[in-house]
Amino acid sequence: MTDQVLTPTLSDDELALIDAYWRAANYLSVGQIYLLDNPLLREPLAPRHVKPRLLGHWGTTPGLNLVYAHLNRVIRHRDVNVIYITGPGHGGPGLVANAYLEGTYTEVYTGITEDTDGLRKLFRQFSFPGGIPSHVASETPGSIHEGGELGYALVHAFGAAFDNPDLVVACVVGDGEAETGPLAAGWHSNKFLNPVTDGAVLPILHLNGYKIANPTVLSRIPQEELEALLGGYGYRPITVAGDDPANVHQQLATALDEAFDQIAAIQRAARLDGEKGRPLWPMIVLRTPKGWTGPKEVDGNKVEGTWRSHQVPLSETRSNPEHLAQLEDWLRSYSPDELFDDDGALRPHLREFAPQGERRMSANPHANGGLLLRDLDLPAFPDYGVAVETPATGTAEATRVLGTFLRDVIRRNPDRFRVMGPDETASNRLSAVLEATDKTWLAETGPDDDHLSPDGRVMEVLSEHLCQGWLEGYLLTGRHGLFNCYEAFVHIVDSMLNQHAKWLYSSSHLPWRRPIASLNYLLTSHVWRQDHNGASHQDPGFIDHVANKRPEVVRVYLPPDANTLLSVADHCLRSRHYVNVIVAGKQPALTYLDMDQAIAHCTRGLGIWDWASTTTGEPDVVLACAGDIPTLETLAAADILRHELPELGVRVVNVVDIMRLQPDTEHPHGLSDREFDALFTTDKPVIFAYHGYPWLIHRLTYRRTNHAQMHVRGFKERGTTTTPFDMVMLNDLDRFHLVLDVIDRVDGLGTRAAMLRQRMVDARMAARRYTRDHGEDDPAITNWTWDSDYQATSLSQQTLSERR
Amino acid sequence: MTDQVLTPTLSDDELALIDAYWRAANYLSVGQIYLLDNPLLREPLAPRHVKPRLLGHWGTTPGLNLVYAHLNRVIRHRDVNVIYITGPGHGGPGLVANAYLEGTYTEVYTGITEDTDGLRKLFRQFSFPGGIPSHVASETPGSIHEGGELGYALVHAFGAAFDNPDLVVACVVGDGEAETGPLAAGWHSNKFLNPVTDGAVLPILHLNGYKIANPTVLSRIPQEELEALLGGYGYRPITVAGDDPANVHQQLATALDEAFDQIAAIQRAARLDGEKGRPLWPMIVLRTPKGWTGPKEVDGNKVEGTWRSHQVPLSETRSNPEHLAQLEDWLRSYSPDELFDDDGALRPHLREFAPQGERRMSANPHANGGLLLRDLDLPAFPDYGVAVETPATGTAEATRVLGTFLRDVIRRNPDRFRVMGPDETASNRLSAVLEATDKTWLAETGPDDDHLSPDGRVMEVLSEHLCQGWLEGYLLTGRHGLFNCYEAFVHIVDSMLNQHAKWLYSSSHLPWRRPIASLNYLLTSHVWRQDHNGASHQDPGFIDHVANKRPEVVRVYLPPDANTLLSVADHCLRSRHYVNVIVAGKQPALTYLDMDQAIAHCTRGLGIWDWASTTTGEPDVVLACAGDIPTLETLAAADILRHELPELGVRVVNVVDIMRLQPDTEHPHGLSDREFDALFTTDKPVIFAYHGYPWLIHRLTYRRTNHAQMHVRGFKERGTTTTPFDMVMLNDLDRFHLVLDVIDRVDGLGTRAAMLRQRMVDARMAARRYTRDHGEDDPAITNWTWDSDYQATSLSQQTLSERR
Repeated sequence: MTDQVLTPTLSDDELALIDAYWRAANYLSVGQIYLLDNPLLREPLAPRHVKPRLLGHWGTTPGLNLVYAHLNRVIRHRDVNVIYITGPGHGGPGLVANAYLEGTYTEVYTGITEDTDGLRKLFRQFSFPGGIPSHVASETPGSIHEGGELGYALVHAFGAAFDNPDLVVACVVGDGEAETGPLAAGWHSNKFLNPVTDGAVLPILHLNGYKIANPTVLSRIPQEELEALLGGYGYRPITVAGDDPANVHQQLATALDEAFDQIAAIQRAARLDGEKGRPLWPMIVLRTPKGWTGPKEVDGNKVEGTWRSHQVPLSETRSNPEHLAQLEDWLRSYSPDELFDDDGALRPHLREFAPQGERRMSANPHANGGLLLRDLDLPAFPDYGVAVETPATGTAEATRVLGTFLRDVIRRNPDRFRVMGPDETASNRLSAVLEATDKTWLAETGPDDDHLSPDGRVMEVLSEHLCQGWLEGYLLTGRHGLFNCYEAFVHIVDSMLNQHAKWLYSSSHLPWRRPIASLNYLLTSHVWRQDHNGASHQDPGFIDHVANKRPEVVRVYLPPDANTLLSVADHCLRSRHYVNVIVAGKQPALTYLDMDQAIAHCTRGLGIWDWASTTTGEPDVVLACAGDIPTLETLAAADILRHELPELGVRVVNVVDIMRLQPDTEHPHGLSDREFDALFTTDKPVIFAYHGYPWLIHRLTYRRTNHAQMHVRGFKERGTTTTPFDMVMLNDLDRFHLVLDVIDRVDGLGTRAAMLRQRMVDARMAARRYTRDHGEDDPAITNWTWDSDYQATSLSQQTLSERR
Repeated sequence: MTDQVLTPTLSDDELALIDAYWRAANYLSVGQIYLLDNPLLREPLAPRHVKPRLLGHWGTTPGLNLVYAHLNRVIRHRDVNVIYITGPGHGGPGLVANAYLEGTYTEVYTGITEDTDGLRKLFRQFSFPGGIPSHVASETPGSIHEGGELGYALVHAFGAAFDNPDLVVACVVGDGEAETGPLAAGWHSNKFLNPVTDGAVLPILHLNGYKIANPTVLSRIPQEELEALLGGYGYRPITVAGDDPANVHQQLATALDEAFDQIAAIQRAARLDGEKGRPLWPMIVLRTPKGWTGPKEVDGNKVEGTWRSHQVPLSETRSNPEHLAQLEDWLRSYSPDELFDDDGALRPHLREFAPQGERRMSANPHANGGLLLRDLDLPAFPDYGVAVETPATGTAEATRVLGTFLRDVIRRNPDRFRVMGPDETASNRLSAVLEATDKTWLAETGPDDDHLSPDGRVMEVLSEHLCQGWLEGYLLTGRHGLFNCYEAFVHIVDSMLNQHAKWLYSSSHLPWRRPIASLNYLLTSHVWRQDHNGASHQDPGFIDHVANKRPEVVRVYLPPDANTLLSVADHCLRSRHYVNVIVAGKQPALTYLDMDQAIAHCTRGLGIWDWASTTTGEPDVVLACAGDIPTLETLAAADILRHELPELGVRVVNVVDIMRLQPDTEHPHGLSDREFDALFTTDKPVIFAYHGYPWLIHRLTYRRTNHAQMHVRGFKERGTTTTPFDMVMLNDLDRFHLVLDVIDRVDGLGTRAAMLRQRMVDARMAARRYTRDHGEDDPAITNWTWDSDYQATSLSQQTLSERR
């Protein structure tokens, strides 16, 4: 607790003013939750003035409003650049109230005027059909943050602060939210914040003591334990506690002055005096009652200061006259007539209390990142391509090639592009980026460290939550980035992806919000090449998860080789307001397309590979593939077929952009039925080798004419620690099985096909035996290229020789 | 750091013995990673003795082995009951090595004998095709934990300790893992551990300093900051640090004695002296080099003590003679001949060092929970049912009814059943459970708290990760439970579900592992009834996620009312080794089936509701539904049709168990095509109203004869804060739209249908207008029952009157 100072920070006038402002925000908050009409209580409150359904969260709101008012004072006094992250996002009414008090709300939503009628509309629309959401959301000016799911306030705050040296991100952390994993891990983000080139994060841990129905852990440990914890996280906590408004106002004003002084001192020391090392940043611990200034007791139960104030303290205001009277008393306790004039406009002295223009936290452009977004300066990606003279003969490591491109993206954009990864950037073979930069690190260093520095633009921490949350915060404030991740473990952030996708979709309908850079995932170390780590590392389901989101905002790419990866990555880095998922391999793999072909192929998103097909006319069978390994196996199967059944008309179709498989009525990238039928025929068997769970392809194509003939191979959740080829065999995705599928699906192939069928069965057995005997795959299989000596013959000979 | 004691804890002999045991485990670990043959180096190491693919993680392994050896000493000295949770699960070789040294491995896998040939097989099988996984896994005796995905060690440990008063769960937390969210939040689990009735968790934070390619955060903050952090989490850390084995052995022995003394003292005080409150539990901080005892330098780079030792320190042992020589030196540095006799058996003094029988951590039955599993004593669930005299006329809150059943499950099973929830048990209307028990709480309490006590069997914390992790640990050690969660936010644990499902599937193939209780999810506050919280709370995709897992282990139930929920819940609580997902509503909702009907319907999993159908013969259209809200809308649509188009043959099919929709070749619950066709016809339109994303129904049914006629309505990711009926209208799942769908799909309906079509369009407009005007749904819609005055007529009249 801060010591009582002899000269209070706030003069009496200042205290009265800040308290009035707080009351105004509280009044507007309660009004939003309850009132349909009679917004300024110019007549006695009647049941008809109250909403029939009471939706909203009061408990956290007075605390949010208190902090907001005090930050306004600091902003005006110091002319600082501050945005406000609302951890307890269910306190939506408070943030709407403050945006309205600052005039921003009326600027953005011109129908919500600054008069009695505007107030009526403001109140009515809240949590009302056709109105605005109950929680902080994209509709809320000043928010970068969908506040419905708890856990991400702090990581978003740090993401916003990176590369914004003049910004202070005030971040209210609810004590409920503080129990979540992402929040608990997020405190350590201070080991990744550079006081020279990044802004500051000021966490405000709001201990109002309760969640929905329970006390919170951090409010129920001894103060010394709490201070040890926060000190252990690397912060200097300043505690403000009380339930007397005047006293708390003084404490909080003093605490914020102290915190902003410390921030300024830290930044001065680092920037001007060259001080090195990780500073201990200040933070605030705010202990005030939940539902403060609301009803103290309802129906004989204590409400203020308890979990009972979490949502709507008075629930029967239409039917229970006592509740109605309590509501009226509560509203009048804020003295609305002192706050709003006869026309319903905020009185001038309160209006003047708010900061002006872009200094208003509700109008700060950092909270509408698209306003600040500048295009990336991208090098010409074709310059990084690999030479491909004949397809499927040379090899490259796709992500290693991409790394050289990303290296130069980093070089050219030193202030607005970051690469995040959970300690996997090198493992994912993007190490070239370290030629241009280091990995961000403000903690202690040692002699054996590799490429660590405070200036690093690659951010590595063993938490997918932190990577995702930092990147979201960075993008939402108008910058660019890429999250590289093992494919299986990106599921850790499924729920964060949900919320970000919802934000993108809802914000795209708000003309005053500008598009932001896309959230780009590079998923590598993918399911087919985690043979060495085993089952726990094998899961391609993130694509399915993403495919359930609104089609307007999601894109999924499976470039089959290095040049297509470059083309796709360039496209994604240029795109806006999407979630782009790129799945690509990191192992040495065949290259198929030269750069011009790659660009053309990626532009179409899918297409026939004539060089691998045996007919340019109507085929007997379509071999379709999406993903690097399925493409490899499909081509190897096509190679067998062209040698063994040369009369069979085989068409090979490769799919990079799997959303093209959907009808154009379902996804903006979708093919028309005519285009789809032209590729996949209307009646021929399609053997589709797909990277992930096979059902996704059915889900995307079930409306197509030829769907009944689509036969999909993919990951069937069969995995373990084994070899790469054994992985595809375990899941029936191997070249031999694809040939089997063709033979079983195409009618009238005759004896030669029947013999080939048996040879394929034998080849699978032989391959498995070889793997089990040698502990590695048969090189005759893994060294296959399009121009290599023909494989099936030799394999079947080998099998025969083994039989002897 | 512990002070140097005058009398060392270990005598010289003890020190030599423990060091030899550690060397033996290290030797076997390196052998597994590298050797194909020549397991005891009885001949000079040659390239052919080395595996062609070197897969495994050395870096963490010597630390795991060190702790294991020292715990063995403690177990023998004190005769304590200890299991070992391996946070750094990639240290698989170490745990396999220890299980082998203890003889357990040979007992379980009789082919891996305790001789030279057994050693050869032990080494060869590791990370080898057809062998065992690289990471700790179900195949590893003594593990309860798939160690591939980091983050869950501590929550699993606490879950294992609950209701196991005699158990000490030693939990190694890697400093990489410590950066994850779930681990960071998991430290606070000590606020939920009752020293009287629960066992103890001994966290051992292993600071070996590095992850894959980076230092770790916790190893790079000052020692005092680290101690503050751990103290802030509520632990008393005891630090052991060094790189001299003899010195570290003494320190660690002393530290473990101290820790076990403290645990015993805490438990004595709580159990015998009645001491109240939350104790400060001991923990160990172990700072030893990564890859300790491995190669110090390779190719001029420092390896021991750096990130370079993370996986395979010597990578070219087949091709580079220097690497091969280094490997041989490394292996010989453990003096294998001192450890194993001429036949390859562990020498007797080392064998005797290990604990015996079930005291061996690798053979402790708690780590094979199915061995200890006792059935729940379940009350007769029909006794809790609601009376249903005529269908779709009365109402009940399904989860509130279930709460009374769960209350008595808790009463009857005070030692083996827990309910977990992220602060939502009351919100999810399961409050009846609090008549039988409290919510677990060891932190401070206050006068306004509700049902908190150390004995509580309902566990609430605002972290889905903790709920899931605790429950997993609890189940894996042979107990039962239920996780109740908001449907949208269960995505937070998607990745944990993946790993648990993989564990269930892989362990089901191990005859020595016994089935455990199913992981039961009750998802309520679901997508259709989060109208008040808005878009962030609306996501039904967890079902899709689960449906991608192996069919052998996943089940999904959508009981439409209270009695069916009871029947399903009873079934799930009795089941074994599944993931059961139950989605059910908490709001007052119509009841359809009396208890006998409910049991029959749930037993079939789906069926025709004759009472709602207009024909018992071949219908003109099938109205199918799954989920409480879709069922409501479907019945309301059926009601319109029976009045307006009585000549239309309507069949209503309700689906509880959606896996029945799949072919029987795909899922054990799947219907044969014949059965499916009998319900859904082979050629009639099926209007399927489904709870979640509509594509799942297509994915489950695309192979069915009549799939082309399946028309699915579900959640299309259209949501916001609005009213319940507006939610279904936004997604075209409402009764009026379902009637539209019927009219548009059934041929030859004539003029009357065309007029009805227009009335349905009007009714939707009117309903929307009513909602927008009144802020709540039209009671004419929400009060609909099967026997109410007919709705469509009145609605269309209303519309007509409004037109005037």
